[in-house]
Amino acid sequence: MDFPQTQRTTLKRLPKRGVYDRDLVYRILDEGFVCHVGFAVEGRPFVIPTGYARAGDQLYIHGSQMSRTLRALSGGIDVCVAVTLVDGLVLARSAFHHSVNYRSVVIFGRAALVEEREAKLAALFAFSEHVVPGRWNDVRAPNEQELKATTVLSLPLDEVSAKVRTGPPVDDEEDYALKIWAGVVPLKIVAGEPTNDPRLPESIEAPAYAIRYTREKV
Amino acid sequence: MDFPQTQRTTLKRLPKRGVYDRDLVYRILDEGFVCHVGFAVEGRPFVIPTGYARAGDQLYIHGSQMSRTLRALSGGIDVCVAVTLVDGLVLARSAFHHSVNYRSVVIFGRAALVEEREAKLAALFAFSEHVVPGRWNDVRAPNEQELKATTVLSLPLDEVSAKVRTGPPVDDEEDYALKIWAGVVPLKIVAGEPTNDPRLPESIEAPAYAIRYTREKV
Repeated sequence: MDFPQTQRTTLKRLPKRGVYDRDLVYRILDEGFVCHVGFAVEGRPFVIPTGYARAGDQLYIHGSQMSRTLRALSGGIDVCVAVTLVDGLVLARSAFHHSVNYRSVVIFGRAALVEEREAKLAALFAFSEHVVPGRWNDVRAPNEQELKATTVLSLPLDEVSAKVRTGPPVDDEEDYALKIWAGVVPLKIVAGEPTNDPRLPESIEAPAYAIRYTREKV
Repeated sequence: MDFPQTQRTTLKRLPKRGVYDRDLVYRILDEGFVCHVGFAVEGRPFVIPTGYARAGDQLYIHGSQMSRTLRALSGGIDVCVAVTLVDGLVLARSAFHHSVNYRSVVIFGRAALVEEREAKLAALFAFSEHVVPGRWNDVRAPNEQELKATTVLSLPLDEVSAKVRTGPPVDDEEDYALKIWAGVVPLKIVAGEPTNDPRLPESIEAPAYAIRYTREKV
């Protein structure tokens, strides 16, 4: 089901780049794991990068209970969350038509504190699975003190839109005759060889999810 | 010279991650090229991803004159711009101590319109050099109509701070005895083989800056 278009999520410019399809939006959110959270305090804007997870129709962010950002957000103020995946540089024949291939999602709403113990654990599990699938089963689970020290916020995925640009440059018709290379330089996030913690015993080998880490979904 | 610390740029939590050194901040800004611009309209927050360039002590962003975002920003409202580079996933022995290695910069200020023709051209040149060094010389320069249709904003790099996390996980002392792999999965943005524009004549070869594209600075 598509997201309803609201005044804030309707693109005024290049409307053909606007996407309201829930499946596509969720694929973008599931490939990314870092978002930028914007909010205003006394009219002044703040933007904070942080990790996130999507589970169902909720976006979860979490952090220390001490964080002034999370304290501010848990008060139920308006937030705008952006997730941006950069797919390539679009090199046109004219400076003017250079562009970037990207997929981005913007979410408007109000975050709510996840307070109930089981819901909080479920959100942290979802967070872990979102960033490193399989990791949760291998590690020491949070104890009661750690759970208390962690603030988890959920943001309903209600007012959401995506923007997508793909494909080659689009030049002015007369510029196609110019002897200038044009095309796309694809970009992606690639994981390298995992580095062991210096205090790790030699007998413990890196798990498959660390050796073959990728954000691309099959 | 260090950036002065202000109330907004002073980290309340984990102050050791705060960085105010201008050289380090500029290295982060020069490696990135996508920022998230936050601003508030009638108290409601908006976050927009966009390209940027640093030149001297200014950050430049640009876009179509039609863009409602740029129109709003050019009115001299407060903005908060974040640039985030993700360097790795930090896998600890406990779920609680999982983290991310990153370098991020946050800039507060008010953007100003770059209106004078030569200054606008210089900013667009800086933008092009920042994203694809060497490209500007190869392409058709903006004509007067394109220049007019482009809005360029500059944001002074005055109130700026960085946050950096590097290195292995930091676990609770008693957890180091657990038989759990721990370490870092490094992440970076990698360019693939450039793809030619479908309308490109076969005789035109991709330039070196497209074939060996990298954000890493030597």
